[in-house]
Amino acid sequence: MYIVPESAIADILTRDDAFTAVEQVFAAMAAGDAYNFPVIREAIGHEEALYGFKGGFDGNGMSLGLKAGGYWPHNLEKRGLINHQSTVFLFDPDTGKVTAMVGGNLLTALRTAAASSVSIKHLARKDSKVMGMIGAGHQAKFQLRAALETHQFEKIIGWNYHPEMLPSIAEVAADFNLPFQALDSLDGMTEADVVISMTSSFSPVFTSAHISDGAHVACMGTDTIGKQECDADLIVRATVFTDEVAQSVTLGEAQHAVGAGLKNREDIFEVGAVINGTHAGRTSDSEVTLFDGTGVGLQDLAVSASIVEIAKAKGIGMEVDF
Amino acid sequence: MYIVPESAIADILTRDDAFTAVEQVFAAMAAGDAYNFPVIREAIGHEEALYGFKGGFDGNGMSLGLKAGGYWPHNLEKRGLINHQSTVFLFDPDTGKVTAMVGGNLLTALRTAAASSVSIKHLARKDSKVMGMIGAGHQAKFQLRAALETHQFEKIIGWNYHPEMLPSIAEVAADFNLPFQALDSLDGMTEADVVISMTSSFSPVFTSAHISDGAHVACMGTDTIGKQECDADLIVRATVFTDEVAQSVTLGEAQHAVGAGLKNREDIFEVGAVINGTHAGRTSDSEVTLFDGTGVGLQDLAVSASIVEIAKAKGIGMEVDF
Repeated sequence: MYIVPESAIADILTRDDAFTAVEQVFAAMAAGDAYNFPVIREAIGHEEALYGFKGGFDGNGMSLGLKAGGYWPHNLEKRGLINHQSTVFLFDPDTGKVTAMVGGNLLTALRTAAASSVSIKHLARKDSKVMGMIGAGHQAKFQLRAALETHQFEKIIGWNYHPEMLPSIAEVAADFNLPFQALDSLDGMTEADVVISMTSSFSPVFTSAHISDGAHVACMGTDTIGKQECDADLIVRATVFTDEVAQSVTLGEAQHAVGAGLKNREDIFEVGAVINGTHAGRTSDSEVTLFDGTGVGLQDLAVSASIVEIAKAKGIGMEVDF
Repeated sequence: MYIVPESAIADILTRDDAFTAVEQVFAAMAAGDAYNFPVIREAIGHEEALYGFKGGFDGNGMSLGLKAGGYWPHNLEKRGLINHQSTVFLFDPDTGKVTAMVGGNLLTALRTAAASSVSIKHLARKDSKVMGMIGAGHQAKFQLRAALETHQFEKIIGWNYHPEMLPSIAEVAADFNLPFQALDSLDGMTEADVVISMTSSFSPVFTSAHISDGAHVACMGTDTIGKQECDADLIVRATVFTDEVAQSVTLGEAQHAVGAGLKNREDIFEVGAVINGTHAGRTSDSEVTLFDGTGVGLQDLAVSASIVEIAKAKGIGMEVDF
């Protein structure tokens, strides 16, 4: 089996590779060639940790396995370790033998960023000029960087509940030689052609009134029952796409509108169908499209398989007799 | 992290170590210090394989992790590999970082055998002399070997649907210098003081009539909805113990009697309670006790933790920077 440690991922995985892997696996999911297993997520009653497994099988890309790990909220303060800790294990679909182990921390950040970028490529207006960020935490920077590599924007605007954190995303804009404007109110977000929200909230941070006609919105922060970034009025107004419908309507951003009967489950579409051409995607310049990125195990497997391939070619990592 | 490959397990794991690890984890489960996560088990639609994850957390032994793998029915014929393939991954409960990877094939056989032996130690009559085997396949040999190391029997009797396979368990008896008698009918099984059944059947192989008063029976073959080794009449007659009640009544040997309303779920007890002394266990020499061994992830974690400890002490396996 092949081992690619966490420390090696930064030298191996490009945003381009993550994008391609995630785009392909979303397409395979929509075509029925790949599926995610039920997610295990347990509060283990120790260190207030959440631990679990996200597994799946992609019969097209032939990836089988899981990401195991979770959230240890005291890692940073107590031990100087990052709070999200995960590891990906790949198996041979032909034999059931383990084939690879890959550090999952940076990988998770990059595959999550790749998902919103895939949605921008396939759902945003081609003439989009202004990129709007809601949220300015660690993961928001990954989101913005991936978006700026996917589409040629002219200006970045950003809002955060703690405005003193906005300089961190201003730095990303500067890396791309793009102007950045800090918003002191979400009212200014109507200037954006594309919006990415990356917050961890249990009540709506923004509403339909903050989004202009024709915009594309990627809601990337909601992955748990009870969390919510946008008011249900935006879900009702927008054409809603997601990575996996089952997750979107139960623990994703669409859970509230669907739960309240304001949106039908049948009106939530897989972004993979747009990639495959079986759904038309955006049909007008005034339509609001929204991508509900819930995060699925198949993203981790697809990106890990890509990492292992590159690592072997570059001679990074190690082969272990197991 | 530490890696112990499959090939090293035979030189590391003694039946004694497996027994101790399984006994401790059953006790921790009954004390509420350890619990198993929901099991993931998926027919992936490739190679007719069943693949999944059995995870858990033992807050007493501080084991966290999972066994991943499954059953690839064509491995042997197509590739000369064993059909059951699994790997155990251990994590640090304090940080969420992966700490060890252990080959899970031989380990699974030994931990399953250890479970019936733990039940024999705690539930069989101390004056038990005749050991009866129902089933003579690969796993039956592990079961018998562990039982013979746990209790001093004087004679082995055995029955199998295909009698031509009985010599394989006769060999185990010979290794212990014990006489073996092949039964051509299960009627002879009434001679046994302890019975282990290790078959893969979807209808009862034996009934209450084949079991004498005072016997202990370990049913080890039923781990799936629909499987059944003994008629429900034996479940009704016996005092029934198990590794995990939730599994016993849904996918274990007790599923049929409980499902038909012949036995109450409240009358199925954890063997760990007997180990802990919170359940009296056997209370007379005429009582029939029955252990429903369904197999839980915590057994795999406990035995793996023991393997890693021994491997490190012996310098077997390898430390990998991950």
